[in-house]
Amino acid sequence: MNTFGRNFRCTTFGESHGPALGVVVDGCPPGIPFSEEDVRPLLERRRPGTGILVSARREPDEVRILSGTFSGMTTGMPVAMAVGNRDVRSGDYEALKDVFRPGHADVTYAQKYGIRDYRGGGRSSGRETVARVCAGALALRVLEPHGIRIAGRAVEIGGVADPASMEAAILDAKDAGDSVGGIVEIVASGCPPGLGDPVFGKLDALLAAAMMGIGAVKGVEIGDGFAAARMRGSEQNDPMTAAGFASNHAGGILGGISTGAEIVVRIAVKPTPSISLPQATVDSRGRETEIRISGRHDPCIVPRIIPVAESMAALVLADALLENQKYRPYTQTQEPAR
Amino acid sequence: MNTFGRNFRCTTFGESHGPALGVVVDGCPPGIPFSEEDVRPLLERRRPGTGILVSARREPDEVRILSGTFSGMTTGMPVAMAVGNRDVRSGDYEALKDVFRPGHADVTYAQKYGIRDYRGGGRSSGRETVARVCAGALALRVLEPHGIRIAGRAVEIGGVADPASMEAAILDAKDAGDSVGGIVEIVASGCPPGLGDPVFGKLDALLAAAMMGIGAVKGVEIGDGFAAARMRGSEQNDPMTAAGFASNHAGGILGGISTGAEIVVRIAVKPTPSISLPQATVDSRGRETEIRISGRHDPCIVPRIIPVAESMAALVLADALLENQKYRPYTQTQEPAR
Amino acid sequence: MNTFGRNFRCTTFGESHGPALGVVVDGCPPGIPFSEEDVRPLLERRRPGTGILVSARREPDEVRILSGTFSGMTTGMPVAMAVGNRDVRSGDYEALKDVFRPGHADVTYAQKYGIRDYRGGGRSSGRETVARVCAGALALRVLEPHGIRIAGRAVEIGGVADPASMEAAILDAKDAGDSVGGIVEIVASGCPPGLGDPVFGKLDALLAAAMMGIGAVKGVEIGDGFAAARMRGSEQNDPMTAAGFASNHAGGILGGISTGAEIVVRIAVKPTPSISLPQATVDSRGRETEIRISGRHDPCIVPRIIPVAESMAALVLADALLENQKYRPYTQTQEPAR
Amino acid sequence: MNTFGRNFRCTTFGESHGPALGVVVDGCPPGIPFSEEDVRPLLERRRPGTGILVSARREPDEVRILSGTFSGMTTGMPVAMAVGNRDVRSGDYEALKDVFRPGHADVTYAQKYGIRDYRGGGRSSGRETVARVCAGALALRVLEPHGIRIAGRAVEIGGVADPASMEAAILDAKDAGDSVGGIVEIVASGCPPGLGDPVFGKLDALLAAAMMGIGAVKGVEIGDGFAAARMRGSEQNDPMTAAGFASNHAGGILGGISTGAEIVVRIAVKPTPSISLPQATVDSRGRETEIRISGRHDPCIVPRIIPVAESMAALVLADALLENQKYRPYTQTQEPAR
Repeated sequence: MNTFGRNFRCTTFGESHGPALGVVVDGCPPGIPFSEEDVRPLLERRRPGTGILVSARREPDEVRILSGTFSGMTTGMPVAMAVGNRDVRSGDYEALKDVFRPGHADVTYAQKYGIRDYRGGGRSSGRETVARVCAGALALRVLEPHGIRIAGRAVEIGGVADPASMEAAILDAKDAGDSVGGIVEIVASGCPPGLGDPVFGKLDALLAAAMMGIGAVKGVEIGDGFAAARMRGSEQNDPMTAAGFASNHAGGILGGISTGAEIVVRIAVKPTPSISLPQATVDSRGRETEIRISGRHDPCIVPRIIPVAESMAALVLADALLENQKYRPYTQTQEPAR
Repeated sequence: MNTFGRNFRCTTFGESHGPALGVVVDGCPPGIPFSEEDVRPLLERRRPGTGILVSARREPDEVRILSGTFSGMTTGMPVAMAVGNRDVRSGDYEALKDVFRPGHADVTYAQKYGIRDYRGGGRSSGRETVARVCAGALALRVLEPHGIRIAGRAVEIGGVADPASMEAAILDAKDAGDSVGGIVEIVASGCPPGLGDPVFGKLDALLAAAMMGIGAVKGVEIGDGFAAARMRGSEQNDPMTAAGFASNHAGGILGGISTGAEIVVRIAVKPTPSISLPQATVDSRGRETEIRISGRHDPCIVPRIIPVAESMAALVLADALLENQKYRPYTQTQEPAR
Repeated sequence: MNTFGRNFRCTTFGESHGPALGVVVDGCPPGIPFSEEDVRPLLERRRPGTGILVSARREPDEVRILSGTFSGMTTGMPVAMAVGNRDVRSGDYEALKDVFRPGHADVTYAQKYGIRDYRGGGRSSGRETVARVCAGALALRVLEPHGIRIAGRAVEIGGVADPASMEAAILDAKDAGDSVGGIVEIVASGCPPGLGDPVFGKLDALLAAAMMGIGAVKGVEIGDGFAAARMRGSEQNDPMTAAGFASNHAGGILGGISTGAEIVVRIAVKPTPSISLPQATVDSRGRETEIRISGRHDPCIVPRIIPVAESMAALVLADALLENQKYRPYTQTQEPAR
Repeated sequence: MNTFGRNFRCTTFGESHGPALGVVVDGCPPGIPFSEEDVRPLLERRRPGTGILVSARREPDEVRILSGTFSGMTTGMPVAMAVGNRDVRSGDYEALKDVFRPGHADVTYAQKYGIRDYRGGGRSSGRETVARVCAGALALRVLEPHGIRIAGRAVEIGGVADPASMEAAILDAKDAGDSVGGIVEIVASGCPPGLGDPVFGKLDALLAAAMMGIGAVKGVEIGDGFAAARMRGSEQNDPMTAAGFASNHAGGILGGISTGAEIVVRIAVKPTPSISLPQATVDSRGRETEIRISGRHDPCIVPRIIPVAESMAALVLADALLENQKYRPYTQTQEPAR
């Protein structure tokens, strides 16, 4: 399943070292101003090789819109975008052809498909998120006129919550040939009440799927999240006043439906599995061996995952927004509850 | 969206105080032995009124299979099941008709739909999970011949991890007119490698959506979960040996695909929002008021949520299993990787 | 796949001789007045045993709404409806248990599923359409305030186009122990322009699937249909004037999207396969035998298929209408083209 | 909706005069040999400019596989293919910018979306079928090892059934500044019994949607089709013998499920709407005007629609085949019925 969304539907394609990665967005409303310029800043934030701390692959990630716009605006037709893979040193990966990297999808892909593109992880590569960011950029343009904004930040890296010390935590791990993870918080503000559906289409369920579908994410929480499990009802409930909710323990979602308060999602990012320390593993014939992964690898992908998580949140919200508009003629004469 | 799954598709219906709740399972394989007897034990575990600690609604929850079985076996046709609502004291809820209960979906349903069945929460009631448990019972029967078993347990209630003290924590809260939440762990054993798909159909993404789609769940984590964010790569990666994985930090899923190790999911359950302590709220016209919720309410729903979470896990796995079988003719000649 | 539609989604269940047939409609807008009374007239038109010409099963087909309405209006929650099977003379079918009826799905169900409910055709019975008619009745209520009306009629029975002679054609066939088919025309008037989507979601493609999905239908055509294949472009094109289209060869759909003109669909209904004349067939072990089908069978199902085809058309249009509303905020400021 | 299929899912994109057209096929099994060479012959048959009778656009239609293959085989990942638009004389279309061509989607797109790419019909152009043919070529490779073959032919053009006279019929129309349509028959042989599902997923319903979703198709019939409406049951039923069906009036499908006999589908293709004769129409402001469409237009698109219809049939069958394999472990121990 390489499609995400019911109304604003993104289908992504491409491998780390194939000709191109890309996405087709079907269901985008017509009349949205959109060009390659809208994608670049988000792609740039996702891009490796922009700091000393991150991996050194230097492809420019030039996106090309192949369809669905006319005179700088979307037409309601599928918007296809592609990014070529130019800096593909496949040779680096020959050594990994028959060895499964711990913490990677190598072993599971081999088991499931029998055949795999072993160069740079193929489809399981983090590079696949380039396509999500392209779609996310379009989703953000759809959300913009509705006043919905999405912002992510690292709230913890390598166990460190103080931003000033995060870089040091990453460098420490790097010097040790190791890696660190962290926690990212995504906040969506300006969301109208009413997004999301009861039961299986709960907005928090959709956000959970979106976030857990990003490689390296091992946990998702909304509002108080796991802390809520240790609170009493009298603490966790948000009192309502004539001016709105008096607090936001719920993280902006009640019964799966947005309340109008800020939507707050946090995700746990595991440490980069590619490390230069030696690790015990097996090869494709099941024989035990040891692996040391050299080459350009991020000791911490938390900063680069932020625009991806923002993009996924944007996809969920754009999808929910369109879903909601479908029923508006039947509900709009009602006074909003508050 | 009241449908869950792509291959083993469950569509649920019903409100807390309507004529009946139920589910239609479309895509169930033929030849699975199944009768009402298979549903009862799971329904019984979900049922209120079975202990001193839980709410006193005493409906027997008799399920009836309406279609899709013949001579005690599924036929491949949709399996519809319904459970009547007999013990419906709607009168209890008249007082809540115009007041929004904090921590409940009352306010969001009113805002979204303009009209709502206010009796007992209507569709947002925890009673909706009766339908999920019916479908889950069928899913478990599908998984059984494959050797897949699912077991859940409370690992923490009201901040207490010692099972012996959990009941006391609940009673304490009850005495204070308050409520507690907790953490449930679901373990699926016997899963073959290869379940789940890359990118948006990752098995962990599907499990996250399934779990976060249960009312009161505020967080989901797989394997090390949030703890992974504080580990180094050398700790978090699971080394591979000729005998299999040497550890299971990943929680049985790598790159979104099952590894064959136990699948471990933990969910954070918020404290029951219905408490008898006074709470500030508003009525349907936005006027401030105070609410004290009397009546039969669980001070802790953690025990009753366990069979629901097991059911949701079973739905995800049955769905992934069918998805996987689709491609087997193309991969089965391959030697398993290990 | 027992679900139809993307927005107004119907999932049907039930066999001819099981406990009940029914449907769950998910995605119905809130605030639509709806009760059992709205379903009865359509069910009555579909019902056998109402004339001398049709089969004599006399079940009253009492529908019960199980969920999704409150105070006589839909709530936006799934609307489940069930019709019990009361008049189930399963004994009639014991003789057919091991013999495949020509022109029926008996042989294909047995091949595909290994197990089948042989009583009255099970799920492949025409009785399955009871569920579609229930859903269709709700769809018609959704279309009503938009001014969309749907009407079907037999334009040909047994090769006879004159309504006065149709009954005679049926009786002739009946006397011969045989059966006849016919052609039904469905006209939807009042449809706004803009329903349907380019490419795979063309309104005519959706109508074709809806109609061909009715048992016994062997052909579908829109507007001029097969006659268009023999016309020249100058005849088939509909000229446009300031007052609208000067003709309606297109049958109300251009490029898959409604034009605002009447939508005209015709379907070919094959003769009832159950006939009392002797037919060559095989049994479940592949041995040749002869079959004479006695019992209550319609010599012509054309009249009873009309409300079913109307219902399917209503489902398609309700679905397309909701799909369309999703994008209205982005297009409504545009002047309509004409 | 630009996605077709549930298991073998094709999402197409692109406009007649945009940068590229293409398709992403998600759900293709791994291990299928596939390269650009497999697409070319089908694309060539669809291509204009290859005969004196068809339009003179001469783009080479070079397809490029962007993802999903490795070492000449599919990997189970999405297969993206793109075809650039090189010969784009957009200038030709400036004159049509504000005038709606009769029989075309111009007016409906303008009404629905407010904005449209008027160059060559944009997304509603017949050129969109390039993407379907790319996907169809892959589907044919999936069907091949199962022994399934698909062949289409024109059985009637301009009312003429004799192949020798078809070209003359087209030239006659061309000389008159007019156009002709025709009937195409698609036959799929080698299909196993059991493809297709009861109710809404009937194989004939899926084929009907696939065919009616091709622009210019106004009718679809299976087996006897509309002729069945004039037959008696004793003529239309196919007797069964120990050697199989004695006839194939059903066109290879009973109860929506393939019987193992040849699947026979016929489609009615309307005459090309672009003709050089003068036609009454309106402009985008609703003012009456006259249009004469000059330029490179086929007087008959029937020959070029054949590979498109074959491709759509291949997509339906590949999809149904995968759907079927899902349930095989539950049914394969059963003896085939015959």
